Amino acid sequence: MVITGSGIGRGVAVGKVIRMAPPLEEPADVRRDASISAVVENERVTKALATVNAELNRRAEEAKNGDEGAKQAAPILEAIAMFASDPSLATSIQNLVNGGKTGERAVLEGFAQVEEMFKMIGGYQAERAADLHDVGQRVIAELRGVPAPGVPDSDEPFVLVAEDLSPADTSSLDLDKTLAIVTSQGGPTSHTAILARARGIVAVVSAAGAEDLETGETVIVNAAKGEVVTEPTDEQIEEAEHAKAKAARAKELRGQAGGTKDGHHVPLLANLGKPADGKTAIEYGAEGVGLFRSEFLFIGNSEPPSVEEQTKAYTELLAQFPGKKVVIRMLDAGADKPLPFLTPEDEPNPALGLRGLRTLRVHKEVLEGQLKALAAADAQTDADLWVMAPMVADEHEAAYFVKLGKSFGLKKVGVMAEVPSIAVMADKVAQVADFVSIGTNDLTQYTMAADRTLGSVSNYQTAWHPAVLRMIKLIADAGNKYGMPVGVCGEAAADPDLAVILTGIGVNSLSMTPVALDDVRAALAEVTFEEAKAKAEAALNGDFYTPAWGD
Amino acid sequence: MVITGSGIGRGVAVGKVIRMAPPLEEPADVRRDASISAVVENERVTKALATVNAELNRRAEEAKNGDEGAKQAAPILEAIAMFASDPSLATSIQNLVNGGKTGERAVLEGFAQVEEMFKMIGGYQAERAADLHDVGQRVIAELRGVPAPGVPDSDEPFVLVAEDLSPADTSSLDLDKTLAIVTSQGGPTSHTAILARARGIVAVVSAAGAEDLETGETVIVNAAKGEVVTEPTDEQIEEAEHAKAKAARAKELRGQAGGTKDGHHVPLLANLGKPADGKTAIEYGAEGVGLFRSEFLFIGNSEPPSVEEQTKAYTELLAQFPGKKVVIRMLDAGADKPLPFLTPEDEPNPALGLRGLRTLRVHKEVLEGQLKALAAADAQTDADLWVMAPMVADEHEAAYFVKLGKSFGLKKVGVMAEVPSIAVMADKVAQVADFVSIGTNDLTQYTMAADRTLGSVSNYQTAWHPAVLRMIKLIADAGNKYGMPVGVCGEAAADPDLAVILTGIGVNSLSMTPVALDDVRAALAEVTFEEAKAKAEAALNGDFYTPAWGD
Repeated sequence: MVITGSGIGRGVAVGKVIRMAPPLEEPADVRRDASISAVVENERVTKALATVNAELNRRAEEAKNGDEGAKQAAPILEAIAMFASDPSLATSIQNLVNGGKTGERAVLEGFAQVEEMFKMIGGYQAERAADLHDVGQRVIAELRGVPAPGVPDSDEPFVLVAEDLSPADTSSLDLDKTLAIVTSQGGPTSHTAILARARGIVAVVSAAGAEDLETGETVIVNAAKGEVVTEPTDEQIEEAEHAKAKAARAKELRGQAGGTKDGHHVPLLANLGKPADGKTAIEYGAEGVGLFRSEFLFIGNSEPPSVEEQTKAYTELLAQFPGKKVVIRMLDAGADKPLPFLTPEDEPNPALGLRGLRTLRVHKEVLEGQLKALAAADAQTDADLWVMAPMVADEHEAAYFVKLGKSFGLKKVGVMAEVPSIAVMADKVAQVADFVSIGTNDLTQYTMAADRTLGSVSNYQTAWHPAVLRMIKLIADAGNKYGMPVGVCGEAAADPDLAVILTGIGVNSLSMTPVALDDVRAALAEVTFEEAKAKAEAALNGDFYTPAWGD
Repeated sequence: MVITGSGIGRGVAVGKVIRMAPPLEEPADVRRDASISAVVENERVTKALATVNAELNRRAEEAKNGDEGAKQAAPILEAIAMFASDPSLATSIQNLVNGGKTGERAVLEGFAQVEEMFKMIGGYQAERAADLHDVGQRVIAELRGVPAPGVPDSDEPFVLVAEDLSPADTSSLDLDKTLAIVTSQGGPTSHTAILARARGIVAVVSAAGAEDLETGETVIVNAAKGEVVTEPTDEQIEEAEHAKAKAARAKELRGQAGGTKDGHHVPLLANLGKPADGKTAIEYGAEGVGLFRSEFLFIGNSEPPSVEEQTKAYTELLAQFPGKKVVIRMLDAGADKPLPFLTPEDEPNPALGLRGLRTLRVHKEVLEGQLKALAAADAQTDADLWVMAPMVADEHEAAYFVKLGKSFGLKKVGVMAEVPSIAVMADKVAQVADFVSIGTNDLTQYTMAADRTLGSVSNYQTAWHPAVLRMIKLIADAGNKYGMPVGVCGEAAADPDLAVILTGIGVNSLSMTPVALDDVRAALAEVTFEEAKAKAEAALNGDFYTPAWGD
C-alpha cells in the first residue's frame, strides 16, 4: 500500500516503524485499594523514580559520546534526571501516598505542585516546567509498566511515526537513530517539517493513513515523491536503496557552484540564525549567506543589544566569509516574533500589523543602532556585505531604507519581498533598491490571505501555488530588466523541484537551510536552463499545483 | 489658515464650529467637605437628575417632530431619560451621599453599580450599559456646571469638531444640524468616515490641526479637497457656496445612467445591508444592486436562519428591482464578522483565517441552505439575480462555487476578488466565473498586508495605492479579454475621483452606498472615456499617490 503526504526534501529511507507512544491517561483521583499498604506503594514509587533517573543518566552518558549536536543535549538530560532524584519532591509524593493516594496519582500531583511553582517563578524556570512534566509522565509510565509517552527510546535506527511532533518531542529525538519521520498531521511548515528540513531528515508529513502504521513493520519513506510504501517488495527496496545512493552522490557535488547543467550560474547560499552557524554553511558548500536573521541578538532581551554587542556578532559572522556575499536582514520584530520593547500587544491581526521595517521606523534608535553596527562590522572584515529590510511595501519604503542605509556607509542596501504590493510595484522598486530577496513564506501567507501558523488554512501555504510563482515572476522580470539581483530565501528555495522552477522563472540566487544545499545543487545540475524555463512556464500555468481543496 | 486631512465625499460646507466636549474627569473618592450637609448635597443631586431627565425628554419630543431617522430615535431617548428618574437608583445615590460621598462621586458609583448589573445580565441589557453611563456623565456635568461630554446639543446647524467619534457619539448625533464633521484622529475607514459616507455628511478626517479649532469660529469644510479653511475671506465663502451649488446640481442627474461624457456606460449600483434599504437605492437612482450583504440574516442569531426565512428576505429585496441586476453576496462570516456557530474562536490572525467561502465550505448545510433560498426567491421574482461568494482564492475555488450554485438553478454565479492571489490568477478565473466583483477594502488590506481595523497601519488602507490599482487592472484586463463582467463594490467605488480611475482601468460597473451615487455620477459625466484612461494610467504609475510614510 502507498500512503501519500507532503515530502520534505528528497531523501529516501528504508526501515522499521516505531510509533510514538500516545499520551498517558491521567491517573484517577481515587483512594488506594485498602489491601495495598503505604509502605509497599512508596517502595514502588521509589523504585520507579530510581529507574527513570538511571535511564535518563544512561542517555546523558550516551549523548556525551555522540556527535556535536548530541553532546549539547548531555547536560540537559543530566539536569532532567535530577528531577527524578530530588529528595523534597520524593517526600511530598510519599506524603500523598501516606494520605491514601495511589502511587501514580501521588506522582502526578507531586510533580504538578513543583510545575506550578516553576511556572509562577517564570522565565527560565517556567520553561523547565515542561521537562518536569515529562519526567513525571515517565515515572507514571514506569509504575504502570507501559512505554513512556513521547519519542521512544530505541537502540536500533527507526522510522518514527507520530500524529505530529511538539517542539519538546523534537528536542528529545535521537537524530542519529531517526531514519525518517512520518506524521499524519502537520503541514509543510509544521515544526516537524522545519526540523526535518533543518537537520536533513527524510520526512513525509500530513500523510493521511499514517495512523495505521504499526511498530515493527518495514516501510519505505520517499520524501521526493511524498510517499510511504508499506509491505514493500524486494524490488521496491532495491529501488529505494538505489535512490539513497543517488542522494549520497549529491554530496560529491559540494564545492561546485550552483547552476544548471549548461552553466547558467545560480549561487546557492545559506540561511543562518547565528554567527556560529557559519561553519555549517561552509561545510555544506554554501557560496555565501543569503539570509542572516538578526533576531537572535534581540529575542529574550528586555531591551535592544548595544551597538558594540551587535558589531561583535556581525563581525564574527562576516569574518568567516572573506570575499563572499553575506546578506543580513534587519531585525524583523512583530507578528510571530514579538519583542516586548518594540511590538504593540493589542493587535487583532499581528501578521497584518506593525512588523519589520514598519516597527523599526517608529523605533529609529533601534534601526540606526543596527545600521551603525553593520557598518562597523563591514569595515573590519572582507566579506561582501548586503543589508536588507523586512516587510517593505513599495518603492517609497525601499527608497527610505536604501537612503538611510547608504548614509551609514553601507554599499549594498536592499529589501525583502513579502508584501504582495511590492511584487506588483517591482518595476519601481527595481529602480531604487540594490537588490530584492523574496521571503516566500510570508509572501505566500499574504498572497493567499492564509495565516501560515493556522492549521485550518495550512493547505494554502505552498509556493507551488501559481499565484505565488506569478508574484515571484513579476519581481524577477523587473530585476532582470533593470539589472537588479533577485534572490529567494524562503522555504521554497530548499525544495529541489521548486528550485528548478525558480531558476526557470529567472531568480538569480537561492538561499536555504545548509542541509538542503546538496539536493538543490544536484537537482539544478540535472537540467538545462531551457528545461528549467519550460518547467517554470508549466508551473506558472498551475500544471503542478494540487488545489488546496482537492478537485 | 488651511488644515488638511482626508476628505469623505466631495461636499462643501460653511458654518460655525462646535467642539465636542472632552470626557469628564472622574470625581475623586474623597469625603465630602464637612460643611456641606447630606440634605443639601442630596438636593443638588435630585435637581441635577431632574434637569437631565427633562432635557432628554425635551430632545425626545423634538425628535418626534423630526424626519424619519430622527423619529426612530425618540423612543430611545425616552427610555434613556427614564434612567435619570429611576427611584431605586436615586435612593442608592442618596445612601452614598448619606455615607459621606460627594454628590458627583455618589452619582458615579450609583450608576456604575447598575451598569455592572446590566453587563452581567448580558445581551440587550449589556448594550444599554453604555447609555446608562452616558446619562450618569450628564448628571455629573450638570452638578459641576460644565457642558455634558460627547456630542453637543445645539439649536443652530454646526460644524462638529472632535478627536474622533465613537459609535455611541454618532448614534446620538443630530444629523439635520450637522453641516460637517472634522476630526483630528481616525482615518478614511474610521467609524466617523463610514457614517459620513453612509449619510452623505461633508467630512474631513485625520485633520492634524483640527484640535486648535474653537467653538464659534466660522470655517469652510471642503471634502473634495480634504481641507478645512479657517478665518475664510468673503471670496472664499462665495467660492464655497458656488461649490455647494454645483454639488446640488449633481442631484439633477438622477435617473440618468452612469457613464462618461462620451457615452461609455458604467452602471452605478447600490451596496445594501437589508431589503428595506432598497427604496433608498431607488431614490438615489441606482441602476440595480451591486452588493447585497446577506450577513444581517445571520448576525445576532445563535443558529442560521431557516431557508424559508431567507427566501422571504431575498424575495422582499428582489421584488423591488424587476428587470434590474441584483448581486447578492453569500454569507461572509469570520474575521471582523465572527458568527458563533461558524467561526473558530482561537485564530491568531482572524483576517487570515477561516472566513467567507472557506467557512461556508466546511458548513455545507449553511452554504446549501442559502443557495436554496436564493434560487427560490429568484423563481418568485423578475429581478436579474447574480450570486457571488466572498474570499475566493483562485480558479479552483471559483469553479467549485460556480458548479454548486448552478446545480441549484442559479443563472449568474460569480466571485468576490479580495485575496491577492485571485488578481494574479484572473485569466484563469475569467474562464470559469460568470463575473467578478472586487472588494477593494479587503483587497487593499491583503495587498498591503495591513489590518484595515488597526490605526497604526491605517495609512496603508487606500485604494489609491498603485499596487491596489494594478491588482484591479489585472482583473479588469482578464475580464475584458474573456468578456466576463468585472465590478467594484468596495469603498473605492464611492470616491468620485477613484470612480473615474476605475472606469479608465476598465472596470464595468461600480457599486456604492446610495448617497455616493450623485457625486460619482456627476464625476463620470465630466470626463471622456479617453480622459479617464489617461488618468488611470497616471494613477497606476503612482502619480496621485501620497506615500503612507510621507516622503
